[in-house]
Amino acid sequence: MTAKLCFDDLPVGTIFEGGNVTVSADDIKRFAAQFDPQPFHLDEKAAEATFFKGLAGSGWHTSALTMRLITEALPIAGGLIGAGVDELRWPNALRPGDTLRIRSEVIEARLLKSRAGMGLVRFRVTTLNQKDEAVQEMIPNLFAPTRAAVSASLAGA
Amino acid sequence: MTAKLCFDDLPVGTIFEGGNVTVSADDIKRFAAQFDPQPFHLDEKAAEATFFKGLAGSGWHTSALTMRLITEALPIAGGLIGAGVDELRWPNALRPGDTLRIRSEVIEARLLKSRAGMGLVRFRVTTLNQKDEAVQEMIPNLFAPTRAAVSASLAGA
Repeated sequence: MTAKLCFDDLPVGTIFEGGNVTVSADDIKRFAAQFDPQPFHLDEKAAEATFFKGLAGSGWHTSALTMRLITEALPIAGGLIGAGVDELRWPNALRPGDTLRIRSEVIEARLLKSRAGMGLVRFRVTTLNQKDEAVQEMIPNLFAPTRAAVSASLAGA
Repeated sequence: MTAKLCFDDLPVGTIFEGGNVTVSADDIKRFAAQFDPQPFHLDEKAAEATFFKGLAGSGWHTSALTMRLITEALPIAGGLIGAGVDELRWPNALRPGDTLRIRSEVIEARLLKSRAGMGLVRFRVTTLNQKDEAVQEMIPNLFAPTRAAVSASLAGA
């Protein structure tokens, strides 16, 4: 079992990198058919005449794939429980054949006054393709328990 | 064919409502297995002992379902092309059996100086369950062409 990360392991400036996952045209169309059925996400031919000039993945597909990479790269104790995301951006479209990885940096970390043993950590998470282009940037806020709280909880279990 | 919405149709204060989509436990587990494989999204029993006290959908599943509802309720001319999202929040978890709908309000609308015939519209989109609880709130920014630009483009096609 992988050691889990606690608040203590996440000072400002800490960087986590991880990946990869490769996306096919079929993956893009399958996600779009279910969640974002627009011509530029569904059909190569129809996509040519649009803003994207070719098949492009839904931004929410990029977000979902990024979450997958975060679960692998950032195993926070108790699970990844978010207090929301700020500034979600898709600077470049997701394309068929793209291989994605993430780069996460802690940009703020503070203990909660309202809840003993719990911290809130703010990350900048950039999702990059194989050409080092950012396909997504976001600033999620995640809860992270202190090591002392995790140890106490294990002792009490 | 549904009439498409232009910038002209989206003054501040305009409200769009739509839905619904119902989510099963299997839907929640299938999405999680692919994109967010954590115990509280994958297994009822394992979820009991977690923060969520029962099976809960990934926040990104809620986002993807919301996008589906937006494509139905907000048919903007040229497609829904986003310039990112601010303040994505999940005030309540997505639960098995939930039926979701959305309420969208235009909170800002401006023509772009950098691109003739194109506007940028800022919405507050709230995703509600059958108990009128918000399962997601977000502020997306979407491009919307003016009616004049759409007419000119159709005339030139």
